[in-house]
Amino acid sequence: MPIQKPRTLSGFMELLPAPQQQMERIMEILRRTYSLYGFTPLDTPAIEASEVLLAKGGGETEKQIYRFTKGDADLSLRFDLTVPLAKYVALHYSELSFPFRRYQIGKVYRGERAQRGRFREFYQADIDIIGDGKLSIVNEAEIPSIIYKTFSTLGLKRFQIRVNNRKILNGFYAMLGLTELSGDVMRTVDKLEKIGAEKVREILVEDLSIDGDKADEILKFIAIGGGNNAVLMALEGYRGRNPLFDEGLDELTTVVKYLSAFGVSAENFAVDLTIARGLDYYTGTVYETTLLDHPEIGSVCSGGRYDNLAEYYTDRQLPGAGISIGLTRLFYVLGEQGLLNPELPTAPTDVLVLPMTEDLSTAISLATRMREVGIRTQLHCEDKKFKAKISYADKLKIPYVVFLGEEEIQKGVVTCKDMVTGEQTQLDPAATIYRIKAGLAEREKGTVILG
Amino acid sequence: MPIQKPRTLSGFMELLPAPQQQMERIMEILRRTYSLYGFTPLDTPAIEASEVLLAKGGGETEKQIYRFTKGDADLSLRFDLTVPLAKYVALHYSELSFPFRRYQIGKVYRGERAQRGRFREFYQADIDIIGDGKLSIVNEAEIPSIIYKTFSTLGLKRFQIRVNNRKILNGFYAMLGLTELSGDVMRTVDKLEKIGAEKVREILVEDLSIDGDKADEILKFIAIGGGNNAVLMALEGYRGRNPLFDEGLDELTTVVKYLSAFGVSAENFAVDLTIARGLDYYTGTVYETTLLDHPEIGSVCSGGRYDNLAEYYTDRQLPGAGISIGLTRLFYVLGEQGLLNPELPTAPTDVLVLPMTEDLSTAISLATRMREVGIRTQLHCEDKKFKAKISYADKLKIPYVVFLGEEEIQKGVVTCKDMVTGEQTQLDPAATIYRIKAGLAEREKGTVILG
Repeated sequence: MPIQKPRTLSGFMELLPAPQQQMERIMEILRRTYSLYGFTPLDTPAIEASEVLLAKGGGETEKQIYRFTKGDADLSLRFDLTVPLAKYVALHYSELSFPFRRYQIGKVYRGERAQRGRFREFYQADIDIIGDGKLSIVNEAEIPSIIYKTFSTLGLKRFQIRVNNRKILNGFYAMLGLTELSGDVMRTVDKLEKIGAEKVREILVEDLSIDGDKADEILKFIAIGGGNNAVLMALEGYRGRNPLFDEGLDELTTVVKYLSAFGVSAENFAVDLTIARGLDYYTGTVYETTLLDHPEIGSVCSGGRYDNLAEYYTDRQLPGAGISIGLTRLFYVLGEQGLLNPELPTAPTDVLVLPMTEDLSTAISLATRMREVGIRTQLHCEDKKFKAKISYADKLKIPYVVFLGEEEIQKGVVTCKDMVTGEQTQLDPAATIYRIKAGLAEREKGTVILG
Repeated sequence: MPIQKPRTLSGFMELLPAPQQQMERIMEILRRTYSLYGFTPLDTPAIEASEVLLAKGGGETEKQIYRFTKGDADLSLRFDLTVPLAKYVALHYSELSFPFRRYQIGKVYRGERAQRGRFREFYQADIDIIGDGKLSIVNEAEIPSIIYKTFSTLGLKRFQIRVNNRKILNGFYAMLGLTELSGDVMRTVDKLEKIGAEKVREILVEDLSIDGDKADEILKFIAIGGGNNAVLMALEGYRGRNPLFDEGLDELTTVVKYLSAFGVSAENFAVDLTIARGLDYYTGTVYETTLLDHPEIGSVCSGGRYDNLAEYYTDRQLPGAGISIGLTRLFYVLGEQGLLNPELPTAPTDVLVLPMTEDLSTAISLATRMREVGIRTQLHCEDKKFKAKISYADKLKIPYVVFLGEEEIQKGVVTCKDMVTGEQTQLDPAATIYRIKAGLAEREKGTVILG
């Protein structure tokens, strides 16, 4: 038979078992954390009718979309989880209760140019809160606490949630009479960290033909810093000149006010007037999250407030607020940077049972008993040398190996070897199970990501 | 703006939040159970190169495949999890340790004719144990215990794991000189329950031109029953006439021998000589699982032993044993039959906090505290009438609503209403949390599926 060389498409992540276990831990933490905030899990199809998925049309993403026909149907793979959410909410509107909070962790598809660290199939992990007609600012104030809880549960310490408000920006540019140009100005200002203030001013004046005075005003504005309260105070100086600005300032003040009640550590949060998020979509609070020791990665969790989730599918006004984690890319970067904790168990099993007798009943009963109490247990009954079985346990980093020979069975004990310390005990099954459970609890203590 | 009518493709399951919660519970139980037996989670791409995915070529499935091009690439969506596993094992062979045990719960795609209860995108939940060159029969003996543990953890009681061995069947047909016809005979015998013995005999004799005597032998053979030991005893009567048969009988005897050590309840297990599984692929033990009160559903968990997982990708002999649950279809059927336990919580949150004061700090701090101890908590701060908020909790079946007004804040208490009993308490936060946690533990006690 001719052999087909096996391969996995480039741009598609396919993990080996040990890193996959780390990925599973991260997903489990995301599911649990999102649930704690009252988000319900959703799962929508990966394929949608093209006319539905692409109702918004145009845009950067369109040429990246996996689009094809099957029979008469024009189909597309989803490229994010927001459009499917919009469709879901519009379609099931009458069966949902608002505010509607959902999380979704799912694969999305973009046929981007393949390059290192870029994926064509990748997980997004999204939460959104959708209101019917209106949505309280308290939801926007709560989102930093969800980001904070998520990343601190994962184990990160050196991260910063950066928050701004689009109404403040739009109001400010309106004060300067630059409403028309505000998109271009924001995109320029967004490059501040990369290119520096001088270059930003140059673009504002030369490329966008903005008066030097106004460019200076902009630079002065985005240079406002010195901690959250100092920024809010400085912004108060602009109050009364534009109603949208004032509204945005009230909102930002509310977001900052409730931070500590929401349990967000002050050092992980910063009001940052330079962030805008590219999309026109956002209308209120916007969020970015950066790893302080790895700013080059960019934002690992972003989002914001929007006014109209499903305008392509319904006349109803459905405002919302949400964030998204690009999970596959985050996982890739964490791995590259050596930030995944190698100490946490990645073995497929906690215990490997090696029966040393012809009749396997006792060994099987022991395995069954261990599984009953939640210990992941594998029987190794293959026709292989003892040494090969030990090296199997070693290679997979299985924490405990249990031997069960005639002698042990007669004495009613089991021999159990801790594969890290080498320590070997001969105890009755109950005591062995106790020892293993205590040891496993100890091993599980670390966090997935190294601080 | 023109409105695009939102819709979800037919044949694609998209659940409302409450049933989705039930689906998530089932998936979580599958993950946990599979892990207990030492299976490691895998996640492979949904898209593969067509030449790789379809290396085996031909077959029933080929015309159902979602196949398309993107740029120069000829791509296909996976139609099962077995071919991607074969590719994975062949590709990563040198980085894996054998026996390699993996589980995978993932979506697969088949463009079948759409009909009620048939899905084009559906979850399969698979486990497989892959050996390198050889694989012990103990793995085949272990699989019924995994099926048993899975379904009993889900809550099913009235199910039966039916087991047979292809070597026994092939050996038996060889005794009769019917090796060439064995595939056709097995397919005919498979219809026994549906069409009856007389009709089976008719097909054997008339369509397959088998001697009447031999047809009677076949009918006598597949009529062997009376419990596992009686079947094994009857099979001993055929021993010595064909080596393959004898080997199969030894294997089946081993599988039955270890059942009780593996914790399988005898009443949920039956040796059944009529089952064969259609695929030529299987070479040893084969499994089917039926719901005793719903035989019309057919097998909900099937699989078996095979000799050559990855023959299209490698010259290595990689025998294995595995089972698959068609999760989407199972979930659909359970719902249709009213077998999903409506008593288990499906609300997005355990507690809805209703702040009754202008300043929300105390309410937010309470929510934060509840989340810290693992209670899923939602703040409802929308500008809505009290009654609307209560009806929101009612509609979503949120178990507890907590009110926090000036009076409560001054007294240092919270009012907490049990939405099922209507009982209302006014206790300090710690006592309220204690009460809620106890109540939630009680509510979580049932199983997902009704026995």
